[in-house]
Formats: sequence, C-alpha cells, structure tokens
Amino acid sequence: MNLIILEGSDHAGAGRYVLTDSRADHIRVVLKAEPGDSVAVGLLNGPIARGRIETVSVEAVSLVCEGLTPMHDAFPIDLILAMPRPKALKRVLVTIASMAVRSVHLVNAARVEKSYFDSPVLEPEIMRSHLIEGLSQGKHTQLPNVTVHKLFRPFVEDTMPQLATTEGGPGRRLLCHPGAKHRATDLALDPLQPVRLAIGPEGGWVPFEVELLEAAGFESFELGPWVLRVEAAVAVALGQISMLVRGAGPG
Amino acid sequence: MNLIILEGSDHAGAGRYVLTDSRADHIRVVLKAEPGDSVAVGLLNGPIARGRIETVSVEAVSLVCEGLTPMHDAFPIDLILAMPRPKALKRVLVTIASMAVRSVHLVNAARVEKSYFDSPVLEPEIMRSHLIEGLSQGKHTQLPNVTVHKLFRPFVEDTMPQLATTEGGPGRRLLCHPGAKHRATDLALDPLQPVRLAIGPEGGWVPFEVELLEAAGFESFELGPWVLRVEAAVAVALGQISMLVRGAGPG
Repeated sequence: MNLIILEGSDHAGAGRYVLTDSRADHIRVVLKAEPGDSVAVGLLNGPIARGRIETVSVEAVSLVCEGLTPMHDAFPIDLILAMPRPKALKRVLVTIASMAVRSVHLVNAARVEKSYFDSPVLEPEIMRSHLIEGLSQGKHTQLPNVTVHKLFRPFVEDTMPQLATTEGGPGRRLLCHPGAKHRATDLALDPLQPVRLAIGPEGGWVPFEVELLEAAGFESFELGPWVLRVEAAVAVALGQISMLVRGAGPG
Repeated sequence: MNLIILEGSDHAGAGRYVLTDSRADHIRVVLKAEPGDSVAVGLLNGPIARGRIETVSVEAVSLVCEGLTPMHDAFPIDLILAMPRPKALKRVLVTIASMAVRSVHLVNAARVEKSYFDSPVLEPEIMRSHLIEGLSQGKHTQLPNVTVHKLFRPFVEDTMPQLATTEGGPGRRLLCHPGAKHRATDLALDPLQPVRLAIGPEGGWVPFEVELLEAAGFESFELGPWVLRVEAAVAVALGQISMLVRGAGPG
C-alpha cells in the first residue's frame, strides 16, 4: 500500500476516519505507526492528504486528515479491451487503476470465450476491490469507470459516438494490432487530445473487428516484435503512449 | 501457445519430433491438427520451422520439421532485477522470455525479503518451464539466461565488469527509479549498444544502491508518474526501451 485509500464509509465526521480492515493492519504492522505519526492517505475520487494517527488498536485505527492537496489530473486515456479471461482481468484492473486510466470498456470479440462474461470477477464489488488495490499501488485516487458491453458492433457503432459527446470529443483512436505498419513513435500524439485505446483478445482481433474499428477512426499500431499476454500488452501500451504524450521530463 | 517449442529431448532422429505432453494436447485439441497439417514450431535456441504432423493419438503427436528459418536476433537487453516475491517472479519470467530479454540477473537488495531466495520457483527446472511458456507466447526460441546473485555490492563491483568483457562491452546502463529527472525519451538510445536495465524491488532501491549503480555508470530515468508492481514495471520498461531503440516501423 503506497497510498491508503479512504472511502466515504470510513468517515466518522469532522475529517476523522476509522479503519478496521487490512488498511488498519497495514498501518499498525507494516508502517508501525503510532498516535501522532502521519501516513499518506488519499480520499477516493478526491484529494491526497496526510493522515495523522489518533488511536491504534488491534481492532481499529483512527486518523484525522490534514493538508489536503488536490490530486493532479491524469492524462485522459480510455481503454477498450476485449474481455480477458477472469484471472487476467483481476491483474489488468490493478494495472489500469495504478496507471490512472480514466475508463475501461470491456467488450466482446470473436475470440473471447462467452463464459468470461459470467465470471464472478465482474461483480461490481470485486472489480472495485481490485481497482482500489491499483489506486493504492499507483498513488492515485480517481476510480476508473468500468463498463461491460456484450455486443461488439453496437458498442463501436452506437455507444462510442455517444461517449464522444460526453467524454471530450472523439479523441485520438488507436488500435493495438500485431503486424500493423506503424509503431507508437509514428503516431505524433497530441497531449491535448484524449486517447481511446483498443486492445484485442489473446488470439487477436478478427479482420471484421479491425475493419469496423478502422471505419470508426481507429489507427493501428504495433507495440513491438512480440506477441504479449493481455496483462503485459496493457502495461506496455499504456507505458508507450503515456511516455510519448507527456514527452520529456516527469509530469 | 503461439509457437510450439521443441527441445532436444523430443528429437526422435531425422528431423522427427515426438511430443507427449501439453504440447501434444494443444496440437490435438486446440489446433485440431491432423496428419498432413502443419503447425508453427521453434527449436529451442534455434530456428523456427513448420512442423508437418505425421501421427496424432491421445498418447502422442509426431511431426517432421520443414522449412527451417533462422530466428532473427533480438536486440540485446540484459535485466538486473531485484529479486521479486515468488508469485511475481513466475509472471516476470514469462514476460521477459516473451519480450526476448537476453539475460536476467536476479539480485539482492535492501528491500528484498531474504526468504525469496529460498523459493522453489528458483529451482532451475521450474524457472525453465516459465521461460519456455514465455517463448511459446512471444514466438521466440532463445532461452534467456537467468542467474541469481545473493550479494548486491559484489555483483555491481566485480561481476558486472566481468560480464562486460563477455557480453559485448559495458553497454548502456539504465536504472528505473521513480522521481528521476529523465524519461526514457531523453536517453537518446543507440540501437547498436546493448542495454543493461536495472529495476528495483517494490519498495524501491535504497540511496546506497542508487549511488553504487550510478557510480557503475547507470543513468536514472522514470517510467512515468506511477508506482508500478514489478510485473508491470518490467513490461513498461522493456516496451519503452524497445520502442525507442528500434525507432519507427516494425523490426
């Protein structure tokens, strides 16, 4: 836990938060914090702060938030991801939250097994716990918005244009596709334009899907001369695009 | 399995290979290949080829290699990785093999738990199985060389200079470090120079380790504005460096 994420349900009034779960254990056992010490906390979908410890016991830790600092806005990137197998989905959710992705659309595709849509990992509370783990890891507070779309074509043709009106325009539309002519370095990314990034299933998109996405303005590029598992592909794609958008120096 | 990796122990003479394990099941059940069909195969540490199926039964699949094509040389990148926790190590081994890393030095560091060095994942046969899974995923045949170094300082001061004489010079030495002034885009990487890339433990390198690595010529850079789990950090770092070294277009 690089950042302890506080939620509304932890709030006990007047800037005081009471934790009774693994976060309390982390503060007590790993951080060995005592009353008067401060730990790094973040309010879910809100600012980061210092949490001044008031009381520590095996049952609970209480702390008061001080020095609230607005979380800097992340570069807006939305992921369109062919539904991964459930075990991979858990890890992908952690990665996308820690890499500050704004939203994820989990979509069907020809090479997605239909049973993946019945996985318990898709229960909102379970997805949320993996996302919060990722925020805690990546030191972010903004919970990514995750939606599931069981029909690919209506998502591309109907839902995406609707999203464009609510999410800052159509954005730069990119499609990871092994064998594409371009690399990310060729894309001349614009730091002012949100990115919509489509990543296919382990077996790749089928030609019909690539055609539909290209007709919707998606430009194909290749991550490198490898075929990657979805967890690695998501991390590599976000890492390349983020570096190219932000350019030199941290920010 | 994007590429079926064949080993010397599968060889039954005259270019014929007999498979009796999960590779045979994959050919029979997933690929549904029949006698006369061809499947993509790679000879471990050797060329890729077409495997013409001769016989298929529930016990075994036999095939003959045809059309051997040399594997193109991967860009030489060597990883110096603080020993990850065993569960993460398994995934890292798959990722580095699928991303064609040449060698991995698993090193001790102040924030590595000593018990990690006793993990059964470090048994050569277990590491090898994860590496071969990665080769099969990434369509490569060259097995990365993995070594374990229980002492950090002697590794940096004594072993690294020895490696420089056997592995094509000191190479460009890079150090992933959150908070570093530079990004990978600032590094002006030279496609002719092998890269040695050092990635720290989940809690980061301690100042003494950073100083020792910098004294040995390692230049610090930051992957992005996140704190990543080691699996994601390895994928992001290799993805960024590979893209910058290879430049535009596939290759």
